[in-house]
Amino acid sequence: MGLELDSIFHPRSIAVAGASAEPGKQGHTYFRVLKENGFQGPVYPVNPRGGDVLGVPAYPTVAAIPDEVDYVISTVPAAAVPQLVDDCAAKGVKLLHLFTGRFGETGHADAAAMEQEILQRARRAGIRIIGPNCMGLYYPREGIGFKLLFPQEPGSVAVLSQSGGNAADIVLSGALRGLRYSKVLSYGNALDLNESDFLEYLADDPETSVIGLYLEGVKDGPRFFRALRRAASVKPVVLLKSGRTQAGVRAVASHTASLAGSDRVWDALCRQAGAVSAANVEDLVDMLTAFTFLPPVSGLRVAVGGGGGGRSVQSADACEEAGLLVGSLPDDIRATLRERDPQYWDWIDNPVDGSILGGSPWGMDEILSLLARSPDYDLMIANIDEFWSLDEEQGARQLLRQMDGFERLRSENAKPLALVVGDSIQAHDWQTETLETLRQRGADASLALFPTVTRAALSLRRLVDYYRRRNEEEVED
Amino acid sequence: MGLELDSIFHPRSIAVAGASAEPGKQGHTYFRVLKENGFQGPVYPVNPRGGDVLGVPAYPTVAAIPDEVDYVISTVPAAAVPQLVDDCAAKGVKLLHLFTGRFGETGHADAAAMEQEILQRARRAGIRIIGPNCMGLYYPREGIGFKLLFPQEPGSVAVLSQSGGNAADIVLSGALRGLRYSKVLSYGNALDLNESDFLEYLADDPETSVIGLYLEGVKDGPRFFRALRRAASVKPVVLLKSGRTQAGVRAVASHTASLAGSDRVWDALCRQAGAVSAANVEDLVDMLTAFTFLPPVSGLRVAVGGGGGGRSVQSADACEEAGLLVGSLPDDIRATLRERDPQYWDWIDNPVDGSILGGSPWGMDEILSLLARSPDYDLMIANIDEFWSLDEEQGARQLLRQMDGFERLRSENAKPLALVVGDSIQAHDWQTETLETLRQRGADASLALFPTVTRAALSLRRLVDYYRRRNEEEVED
Repeated sequence: MGLELDSIFHPRSIAVAGASAEPGKQGHTYFRVLKENGFQGPVYPVNPRGGDVLGVPAYPTVAAIPDEVDYVISTVPAAAVPQLVDDCAAKGVKLLHLFTGRFGETGHADAAAMEQEILQRARRAGIRIIGPNCMGLYYPREGIGFKLLFPQEPGSVAVLSQSGGNAADIVLSGALRGLRYSKVLSYGNALDLNESDFLEYLADDPETSVIGLYLEGVKDGPRFFRALRRAASVKPVVLLKSGRTQAGVRAVASHTASLAGSDRVWDALCRQAGAVSAANVEDLVDMLTAFTFLPPVSGLRVAVGGGGGGRSVQSADACEEAGLLVGSLPDDIRATLRERDPQYWDWIDNPVDGSILGGSPWGMDEILSLLARSPDYDLMIANIDEFWSLDEEQGARQLLRQMDGFERLRSENAKPLALVVGDSIQAHDWQTETLETLRQRGADASLALFPTVTRAALSLRRLVDYYRRRNEEEVED
Repeated sequence: MGLELDSIFHPRSIAVAGASAEPGKQGHTYFRVLKENGFQGPVYPVNPRGGDVLGVPAYPTVAAIPDEVDYVISTVPAAAVPQLVDDCAAKGVKLLHLFTGRFGETGHADAAAMEQEILQRARRAGIRIIGPNCMGLYYPREGIGFKLLFPQEPGSVAVLSQSGGNAADIVLSGALRGLRYSKVLSYGNALDLNESDFLEYLADDPETSVIGLYLEGVKDGPRFFRALRRAASVKPVVLLKSGRTQAGVRAVASHTASLAGSDRVWDALCRQAGAVSAANVEDLVDMLTAFTFLPPVSGLRVAVGGGGGGRSVQSADACEEAGLLVGSLPDDIRATLRERDPQYWDWIDNPVDGSILGGSPWGMDEILSLLARSPDYDLMIANIDEFWSLDEEQGARQLLRQMDGFERLRSENAKPLALVVGDSIQAHDWQTETLETLRQRGADASLALFPTVTRAALSLRRLVDYYRRRNEEEVED
């Protein structure tokens, strides 16, 4: 399957059946992304009404395209799909992606029957299907995608999401924190190719270093569990299982007609397989961020700095509640602090409270740098105290200088460092612009960005748990 | 105490000891806020070095001010405070707010002794003290405050926060969601006036309809518990107890030298008193938002709409995991849907998936309006699916039209409605501006805004719990 899927990801030519000249229509977006994001092969618009799309004349049918077509994206109505499959068969198409929905997910017997008919016709012709009822593939290296504003540059995060909407939430909110993607697949009803096919492929995909999964249900439990265990043994896998509750199960049924399972079963399965379980989309993106930007770490002792007294107390509680250890400053560091600050060396502690340093010769970044080099700490959290600081434009300048220190900390030291910088739109444009600059600089410096200290602490804790378990397994092997 | 504190909140004149001409210094900010935010009485800068502050010549001492002074804000160094207290005594000052820190919180015996000496001198002169080591009072009705960009218009939310930094986080992040404030107090080391004094006052304050508390410790446990129970019996009180963990306790000690208690004790105390417990600053602001913008409600049955299939599944899980009931559409509503949509009336469900409505004659806001009028639902959640929609500018226009519907829903129906609209700064300015407009419109329409559906669901659940408990108590009385 691995090799077969790989050829599917590298089509020589693509046709968009249902390509539209009208912006906002998905049949327009697919075509436009291929043209604008650098897909190297020929791209054919297909529309029985003719006309042209972005200056390219449409063919009336796939069969009418004079050249070879490897891959067809369908946005035609459900009723037109059986004929489309036959056209694809005649043309020797290898992969059909059905954005087209209104099949099994409607709960209507005739629509489910038509779905099966399509599957049979495709099987006879050797055509593999992604979908129906899904957004399909986002593969920035090849210029393939389904939203105009997905990042064009590739990265190493793969996302497998039954839901196209949740895939977009994950891709775009992750992109704001510096995540870039290898391959993203939204596969909807999973009529033919399903979660196990894709997961088996991604486990061995050299372009992918971490995998995020959003699942509504699985087709074949035992096979999926094997695939999950295999993937999680070679790279971090974060799994968000939806349809965990009764209402969730019902929503899943009308969304992708999947059979969801109970939350407890999934949690146990995730743990056994060595995957990391996520509570919701934000949590999934937090863990993808942690795995992408932080090195393996197996100690829980955290050093925290940045922000004043209130933020320090918030940080201390958040860290210990997440199970991290916020140890007091060790004697050697206190002795070093005393050399330069005989007055307040014994008052400074971990978390390092910036307001205490107001009258001290020690700067926050100097102390954090000491802590980063200390064998008494395994992890670092730095806070940007944005609400407090952005009261005046000079506060903005201070935060940007603070960021210099955090960037240095990142570049001079390999210790895992999480940077907490709020990402809320502020009341004044200059405040919002400052936060945007800080976030962009953090992403450019490959810093792991979190919007709150609670989310940073919870993510670090699970990062440590993951690598501890990996280490134990390696010892056992 | 109530009456005495009330006069403290309405000083006829204020002096800022340590007033500075230098922007960024807190002694500058206090003075500038009073001058620019409309404080009605005379404001005197005091600085032994002379000069003038924003064009007003500074007096060398408080004693040198020719007129009466009710209230003194001190930003002078700790060593100068004993003399300042004597000057205040000579002048008949009623209230001294010590922004000045470096007292008991340093852990140094001499500093703690000086703190006690200050308290004795103040007691002898009948001067009440706020602080030391705190930001003091933000009272927009009187034009008193401690940050330049706090909202100038008043509201009905009171915040009592030992930490000034956390007070700023709460005030400013809440302001972005439409919260406005009656009285906010940061009281630091609570040398004289403490949490119980302020809480007793706020319980009876007609300007205050909901109270948020950020506590690091209390001076007198039994008295505080009585005050909390009394306050919670007349208005919603949300309590965030910090210093819940070992590291938190240590951070609290060096921040405000308070004695923190264990988490379990505080949770039990909160429950017994009828207050709502918050897990962190974000959670506290969520609950203040819920209590401010949502009416009393005692049913858990929620109707959810807005967004596509992925968001619908996310919403269903988040709601049921929070303990809300996401019931399937009742027969009468299905019958109504069928009249206009014979094709998909049975596919549409709760949560209402916007992507199903793509080909339906029913609009999302029409269905939500049906649900809002239905006796089968107690609560509503509406989603703005921002990442999905803001792929093109026409998506922005669609969201703004959707907002029209949510505003109508809010104005035509009394059912509690939470609006989920992400507040993250986006990659493109027009996207950020769209979200800012949506949030601003939501706040203007008094909609309860939440940045994620998980946070909305958790807040609604606790809102219901609070009012159910209130109802039970009323039955018992």
